[in-house]
Amino acid sequence: MSVQQASAAKPSILVVSAHAADFVWRAGGAIALYAERGYHVRIVCLSFGERGESAKMWRQPGMTMDRVKVARREEAERAAEILGGTLECFDLGDYPLRVPDEALLRLADIYRDIRPELVLTHSREDIYNFDHPLATHVAQEARIIAQAHGYKPEVPVIGAPPVFLFEPHQPEQCNWKPDVLLDISAVWEKKQRAFTTMAAQEHLWEYYTRVALQRGAQATRNSDRKITHGEGYARIFPQVSEVLA
Amino acid sequence: MSVQQASAAKPSILVVSAHAADFVWRAGGAIALYAERGYHVRIVCLSFGERGESAKMWRQPGMTMDRVKVARREEAERAAEILGGTLECFDLGDYPLRVPDEALLRLADIYRDIRPELVLTHSREDIYNFDHPLATHVAQEARIIAQAHGYKPEVPVIGAPPVFLFEPHQPEQCNWKPDVLLDISAVWEKKQRAFTTMAAQEHLWEYYTRVALQRGAQATRNSDRKITHGEGYARIFPQVSEVLA
Amino acid sequence: MSVQQASAAKPSILVVSAHAADFVWRAGGAIALYAERGYHVRIVCLSFGERGESAKMWRQPGMTMDRVKVARREEAERAAEILGGTLECFDLGDYPLRVPDEALLRLADIYRDIRPELVLTHSREDIYNFDHPLATHVAQEARIIAQAHGYKPEVPVIGAPPVFLFEPHQPEQCNWKPDVLLDISAVWEKKQRAFTTMAAQEHLWEYYTRVALQRGAQATRNSDRKITHGEGYARIFPQVSEVLA
Amino acid sequence: MSVQQASAAKPSILVVSAHAADFVWRAGGAIALYAERGYHVRIVCLSFGERGESAKMWRQPGMTMDRVKVARREEAERAAEILGGTLECFDLGDYPLRVPDEALLRLADIYRDIRPELVLTHSREDIYNFDHPLATHVAQEARIIAQAHGYKPEVPVIGAPPVFLFEPHQPEQCNWKPDVLLDISAVWEKKQRAFTTMAAQEHLWEYYTRVALQRGAQATRNSDRKITHGEGYARIFPQVSEVLA
Amino acid sequence: MSVQQASAAKPSILVVSAHAADFVWRAGGAIALYAERGYHVRIVCLSFGERGESAKMWRQPGMTMDRVKVARREEAERAAEILGGTLECFDLGDYPLRVPDEALLRLADIYRDIRPELVLTHSREDIYNFDHPLATHVAQEARIIAQAHGYKPEVPVIGAPPVFLFEPHQPEQCNWKPDVLLDISAVWEKKQRAFTTMAAQEHLWEYYTRVALQRGAQATRNSDRKITHGEGYARIFPQVSEVLA
Amino acid sequence: MSVQQASAAKPSILVVSAHAADFVWRAGGAIALYAERGYHVRIVCLSFGERGESAKMWRQPGMTMDRVKVARREEAERAAEILGGTLECFDLGDYPLRVPDEALLRLADIYRDIRPELVLTHSREDIYNFDHPLATHVAQEARIIAQAHGYKPEVPVIGAPPVFLFEPHQPEQCNWKPDVLLDISAVWEKKQRAFTTMAAQEHLWEYYTRVALQRGAQATRNSDRKITHGEGYARIFPQVSEVLA
Repeated sequence: MSVQQASAAKPSILVVSAHAADFVWRAGGAIALYAERGYHVRIVCLSFGERGESAKMWRQPGMTMDRVKVARREEAERAAEILGGTLECFDLGDYPLRVPDEALLRLADIYRDIRPELVLTHSREDIYNFDHPLATHVAQEARIIAQAHGYKPEVPVIGAPPVFLFEPHQPEQCNWKPDVLLDISAVWEKKQRAFTTMAAQEHLWEYYTRVALQRGAQATRNSDRKITHGEGYARIFPQVSEVLA
Repeated sequence: MSVQQASAAKPSILVVSAHAADFVWRAGGAIALYAERGYHVRIVCLSFGERGESAKMWRQPGMTMDRVKVARREEAERAAEILGGTLECFDLGDYPLRVPDEALLRLADIYRDIRPELVLTHSREDIYNFDHPLATHVAQEARIIAQAHGYKPEVPVIGAPPVFLFEPHQPEQCNWKPDVLLDISAVWEKKQRAFTTMAAQEHLWEYYTRVALQRGAQATRNSDRKITHGEGYARIFPQVSEVLA
Repeated sequence: MSVQQASAAKPSILVVSAHAADFVWRAGGAIALYAERGYHVRIVCLSFGERGESAKMWRQPGMTMDRVKVARREEAERAAEILGGTLECFDLGDYPLRVPDEALLRLADIYRDIRPELVLTHSREDIYNFDHPLATHVAQEARIIAQAHGYKPEVPVIGAPPVFLFEPHQPEQCNWKPDVLLDISAVWEKKQRAFTTMAAQEHLWEYYTRVALQRGAQATRNSDRKITHGEGYARIFPQVSEVLA
Repeated sequence: MSVQQASAAKPSILVVSAHAADFVWRAGGAIALYAERGYHVRIVCLSFGERGESAKMWRQPGMTMDRVKVARREEAERAAEILGGTLECFDLGDYPLRVPDEALLRLADIYRDIRPELVLTHSREDIYNFDHPLATHVAQEARIIAQAHGYKPEVPVIGAPPVFLFEPHQPEQCNWKPDVLLDISAVWEKKQRAFTTMAAQEHLWEYYTRVALQRGAQATRNSDRKITHGEGYARIFPQVSEVLA
Repeated sequence: MSVQQASAAKPSILVVSAHAADFVWRAGGAIALYAERGYHVRIVCLSFGERGESAKMWRQPGMTMDRVKVARREEAERAAEILGGTLECFDLGDYPLRVPDEALLRLADIYRDIRPELVLTHSREDIYNFDHPLATHVAQEARIIAQAHGYKPEVPVIGAPPVFLFEPHQPEQCNWKPDVLLDISAVWEKKQRAFTTMAAQEHLWEYYTRVALQRGAQATRNSDRKITHGEGYARIFPQVSEVLA
Repeated sequence: MSVQQASAAKPSILVVSAHAADFVWRAGGAIALYAERGYHVRIVCLSFGERGESAKMWRQPGMTMDRVKVARREEAERAAEILGGTLECFDLGDYPLRVPDEALLRLADIYRDIRPELVLTHSREDIYNFDHPLATHVAQEARIIAQAHGYKPEVPVIGAPPVFLFEPHQPEQCNWKPDVLLDISAVWEKKQRAFTTMAAQEHLWEYYTRVALQRGAQATRNSDRKITHGEGYARIFPQVSEVLA
């Protein structure tokens, strides 16, 4: 199914991921939940994580950048498929990621095209990974551009979709705090299946299983409901609501 | 209608207000909204604001503490009635408010009794009014006690109702930030009617009308919906949810 | 009157505005106050706000970028004139604003030229508008360059003019806090007249009137003086003084 | 072995725990490590957690406060013994914990008596448990009193033992950040054995096993050493050192 | 000169000091400056610092609490006299300082009596000294009470004097930041003379001389004026002004 | 001794300095300490500070950029030699410093080459000097790149050396807090000798002598050891340790 077909006439959400695997570890549950609800979930990977998140492949003799990219793309596509999302790769390079204004505007055009109801991306700080704060900056700046009437005035502007920041690897060190604990119990099996396709990062499977269990336990404690697995998100914008919940 | 009758078999919310007028200015919209939805809204006023928020009365010659208290209680009851809430006064004194453990436990018992779905109270900092941070501390500590199985073990414990902190008079100076912008457009007329009963603080009518309009405009901007009046609340606990919105 | 003539032999202040209208909403009172006191007030607009703040114009059929720029420049000049300031447009584009080093040094040269006693510019954070934090970064970096003896060593360096950050549209969300409440009661009529020339942003007239009234009320409360209209500013640098006031 | 005998002529550390179980979940690894190194580890429990952390017992019919306290004390003593620490119970009550000045001075006297090289206690904030911030306040204030020459001038003052704050149940919500990741791999088996004696809180066994594994993985990542289990601590005071490590 | 005489018909400032020496180290420059300008400077010492700041005296054999208090009072009076202030001792004890409501109201009455134009007191945090945050809390709460019309309604309320927080011993550790650098060059000799009367704390003479020189150098750097000695203060309330300086 | 020879088979540390003098004022003690212990200390100066920190030279008539650079390099080399470090100059220019990706990767290659045990660089904020935050950003990003297996896969990646941020000129204004107070008493004489070679900044000699004395006094107070001179550092990453000290 092409990117164009995928988005026709469906509500949508947008996920902006610095590297090919981030969206799986950090937002796999949300993606699966919304895909099951009939949403088009567009996942933009700014890079394949070819340098920074492919240690296992690089340990093989004779490895090349092209082979790593191909393999990471395949993994990411398989994971996206399991979760129900549609992958789009910008192939901008990583470590360091650099985002030229053309890529920023390409992302703004995606906002205009799919008109997402919400946006998921990285935390604003990450002392372990400078590509992450850049990715969130770009995701937010593209959103602002897509709101501007004078940018491509012939295309309708978007509204104000809320932005949720996914959990970094070491949350306290990134001054990230979960404002929302999303109950992903119903789709946990899918998320787990998706990330076990990420052969390059096998050492993280158990780590992120524990993250999901801890956030689930905390969600239970904060709600008095029985929740087994959770994903944490930080908000940027105030929630607008008719209820307090 | 007695406090006991009011709470029978209804869902409820709890509002903990340091002084008799705080709940009107700061949470009048939420109270009216929830009352219209059939909730029992219990409003606990720790004091009448007899010293700190009754300047106008004290300017009258021969005024006494008793007369001020009676007048403030009448005003607060009238306002609560307009909003649809049920008032309960602890009469602990203000400027300075002091809360003995008996009052803390009385509040814990109210939690146990009405089992609120959510709690509204003051911000954690207020450099202009030290009774406010104390009120929120007490409201939160009583909630924790009501959750403890060993406190009055014969009475069922409560779950984990979320706590929302209402907007202080000068929000930035109190390090308060609105995490939720509540749309109170539908009940604005009621809120306005309620606070115009507060004759002692006439100078604040216009101030809080503007606050509601600003929060309404900001709610519009953050949601792309048309909202005329808003109330801001800060969250303490992470939201537990199956959606990101 | 040319920029050169305007600055001759007068004390001066510098205002650095990301878009053509920002200086009016956010610093119009300060500009009018200082102009009335005989100061040369140089207003640098990095862009015309042609994309992001001209929604109303873009809704007209057949609108072009050039026509928007011309109109915004005219509005800005009219507003500057009413306030008593002198406008200088860098025309760097907005949404996204991008500032090449040439523009940074041009601004540094303005610092050297007019030697401002104080500087007004945007807040350091603005989740709704990424041009604003960039503008304040540029305004501050240019100031630092103008202080360096080795930059154009033949031109005298400047001292250490304090920098004041004006109020963003949604202050709490930008972690902005007013360190100074400036009494603009005496010039409010001018500020109001200036911003009503901004036809492109009519929806903001009432919003910023309320901002001025709230800051005025807060200024009264913090000073016990009668102040009707105020403007809030955050400080960057410590105040150096012989009094505590 | 009595408290008096335990402390004779050994280096020591002090652990101040609000409830009987806190020291096990939060500092069990540090206690075991230092006990193995020959330290006297004094564990002061301000309360038994008889109300707030004994839910399982209170669900038994006919339970009494005395029986809960006895059971919690036995559990805590067993855990302390496994870890190698010496327990001292202040029995001040919990939910709410209240600490009279006599208890504060009793703690100051313990500082003077055992002269700890370091102090472990709770985080400064805990929105889920107000006894914890009070416990850390008391632990710190007692330390300051024990440093004062005029308090019991006949007893030698203590120096400046560093204070480490242990990890709260939901760390981000408490604005707690690990400044030190302590490698407890060597004593993990002891810690696990100790907390499985806490029958009243069986539901937490898996939770805190995962905490230890996550902190271990993070310790590995921050050091490039192989560490399986960790405990996180926040510092209050700057580290004084001849190396940067 | 009695306290009553001192305050007659003069403008005044109020200094609230936890211990007898704090006002000298931390606010001696401000006191001297304002005294020279004809202000009545009332210095309230909540304690003599008899336990926590009198180490040198306690090292003398046979020292008693009474002798320490007498000596500290004399020192403080001598220092106040040099600076031009009027000392008032509450003798509440230190390490720990405890402030009953009677003392709080006594302080509120002093506010009403002298109607200070500004207030100087401790920082809000001090991890080395818990008496300091308590002193600032009391100083601020008393100010709020003195503003309340219903507290002693027969005595006129005060306005809104700004509050300045003096520099703690280790400023960064107390999250204290200088918002104002006060030029005390003109009175430095007096401040130095005053603190050299504090025989009990001789080891601090050089330390606070260096503090004054560093703050002076920083004041120079932030103002381009020549300033040799400075004192730093943090603000609590926004400054209300007709100028930005 | 060449850079290549210097690093052979020794443990090493890396210092990244924005300007030629920063490493002396801010890290001279650490450099001398580690050099004495047999470490190779590589000092990378991104610029000579030719514009921003050479005021004294620029006041000489006929001064040229080349002459300033030569003089600053000589000074820096002399200082590095006294301290025992090895200087490497990137000559990227200052005020404003701009770091192209080539320079970033050159720095990453140095990480790979010398494999430092620890890294010293600037604070993350500095409102007085924007070159400093850029330098720390580059130092940290280069470290992350050097950790990535896919960057120059034929060269072994580095581990996770901790990063320490040195004290800015006005620490509180930069939100910098000392997490470590390094005892430099043993090498103070060397540090002092090194910075007195910096003829261009003679006015800072006394300032930084006082900084060292204050940090020494604070180190004493936090440790109860006698320390005359100190250097403060902020940590970025959590410390991984088997002790709490």
